[in-house]
Amino acid sequence: MLLGVPDAATASRWAERDDVETVVWRPGEAPLGRTIDLLVLPYLAPAADLAGLAGQPVRVLQSPMLGHDGVADHLPSGYLYCNAVGVHEAPTAELAVALLLADRRGLAEAARASGWDHARHPGLAGQRVLILGAGGVARELVRRLEPFEVALTRVGRTARDGVHGVDELAGLLPEHDAVVLAVPLDDSTRGLVDDAFLARMRDGAVLVNVARGPVVDTDALVAHLRTGRIRAALDVTDPEPLPAGHPLWSTPGTLVTPHVGGDVGSMATRLDAVVDEQLRRLAAGEPPAHVVHDTR
Amino acid sequence: MLLGVPDAATASRWAERDDVETVVWRPGEAPLGRTIDLLVLPYLAPAADLAGLAGQPVRVLQSPMLGHDGVADHLPSGYLYCNAVGVHEAPTAELAVALLLADRRGLAEAARASGWDHARHPGLAGQRVLILGAGGVARELVRRLEPFEVALTRVGRTARDGVHGVDELAGLLPEHDAVVLAVPLDDSTRGLVDDAFLARMRDGAVLVNVARGPVVDTDALVAHLRTGRIRAALDVTDPEPLPAGHPLWSTPGTLVTPHVGGDVGSMATRLDAVVDEQLRRLAAGEPPAHVVHDTR
Repeated sequence: MLLGVPDAATASRWAERDDVETVVWRPGEAPLGRTIDLLVLPYLAPAADLAGLAGQPVRVLQSPMLGHDGVADHLPSGYLYCNAVGVHEAPTAELAVALLLADRRGLAEAARASGWDHARHPGLAGQRVLILGAGGVARELVRRLEPFEVALTRVGRTARDGVHGVDELAGLLPEHDAVVLAVPLDDSTRGLVDDAFLARMRDGAVLVNVARGPVVDTDALVAHLRTGRIRAALDVTDPEPLPAGHPLWSTPGTLVTPHVGGDVGSMATRLDAVVDEQLRRLAAGEPPAHVVHDTR
Repeated sequence: MLLGVPDAATASRWAERDDVETVVWRPGEAPLGRTIDLLVLPYLAPAADLAGLAGQPVRVLQSPMLGHDGVADHLPSGYLYCNAVGVHEAPTAELAVALLLADRRGLAEAARASGWDHARHPGLAGQRVLILGAGGVARELVRRLEPFEVALTRVGRTARDGVHGVDELAGLLPEHDAVVLAVPLDDSTRGLVDDAFLARMRDGAVLVNVARGPVVDTDALVAHLRTGRIRAALDVTDPEPLPAGHPLWSTPGTLVTPHVGGDVGSMATRLDAVVDEQLRRLAAGEPPAHVVHDTR
């Protein structure tokens, strides 16, 4: 079984496996002249890089990411593309809770202080938290937030048991102290958080984004943050990386982390488990798991 | 029923109650010439201020704090002193989780950054967390940490079911990635976290203190933080307030919050519930709840 990996560090983790031959290969490099059975793609690489697959036969592409926005526009014909279900949901939900708690307890203000500045922050207990999204990240988020004495509201694409439909959002926003974005980026969510959305948020409420930057209209968010009426804790931004000097680095009540939702010490272990299962399936002649694009 | 409160804001919350007459009075002010039935003490006031009670008869003193270190040294004779059980445990545990997550996800570093600096932090999932303390804060902390995929170890004064004794601490410290202090300050815990304690912590481990500053030997902590080998997230320090220019403001891997463990938006509501229950008990001729010092 020929396993393609994006770097030597990943290759070294498979060195002991007798049934796996490992090659370091990234889209854009010269074709190897033989078929890669499973190719692990580079982490956080732009979707446009997928064009560089052309000429290199691959039976199964394994992305290390959960989100796959842009892939449909750039994946050449002849490939099966799988996303990394099970790798990032828990770490991303963990970061969402970290950002929410940091905001509600004034930790960014404390980190920037060089003196004892006792100010009261709302805290999380007793707050009403709206989670936008109903996938794996949202599910992990609910599980982690439940012991914090919060009132949780879930909003998904369509209403179902315990989940409100996105058509109810305008009415729900003014009643919540925090809004956590955990949706995939697609045509229905791009720019969803616009001026009207932000205007309906309560005074002092916080927007937490662990989804994708373009779910939020950055200019509208900057304008609202500048008034000091709402706050934001963002792991993802539009553009990304957020350039030096961008207004979001200095708007009041804002904390930005550099897209580290899934990027934790345990990521390699979690991704290896996904790769291992795909190799097992290939060896057994079973279809790969979590195929989200098929251009064969 | 005469209720003494430390400020007009608290008094205003009791203005509607026909059965309660409210007076704003703090230790050190001139005696009123009548007995206060229940006196709510000022938040975060030094224990030494209690000497200023002398001459003012009070049936029951209600502290707004949970910790009552120093009270025995300063409380004049003739008083019943109750601590604020049920007010601070949840917010303090909430802050401990916030500090732990902030450290494990690099949020202080992100808050101080003015550019996109992608670095990998360990994350909390998969880490081994030692909770030192077995009271209300520790209990609330366990409840909140359970969904985060951590291995929890509890250490109390003496071993019992699910709790290790403090005599096992030296052996346990090297096996944990985070140590959270949630003990009361007394003779057995003062200076407990000394050079030897810190030296036994793992490389990269974090010390979270939501207990009391003097549980930690500050000079020893500063020395260990300066090497960059361990990290710290501290809501309490010794001295307190931590003066401008103190080394802890600039040691690497350090986040300091200004003793805000229990100081959240919901604190007033939680404290009012405690006061309400004490008033009910006084009216009913029942003994007050949570008496921790009696100098009558």
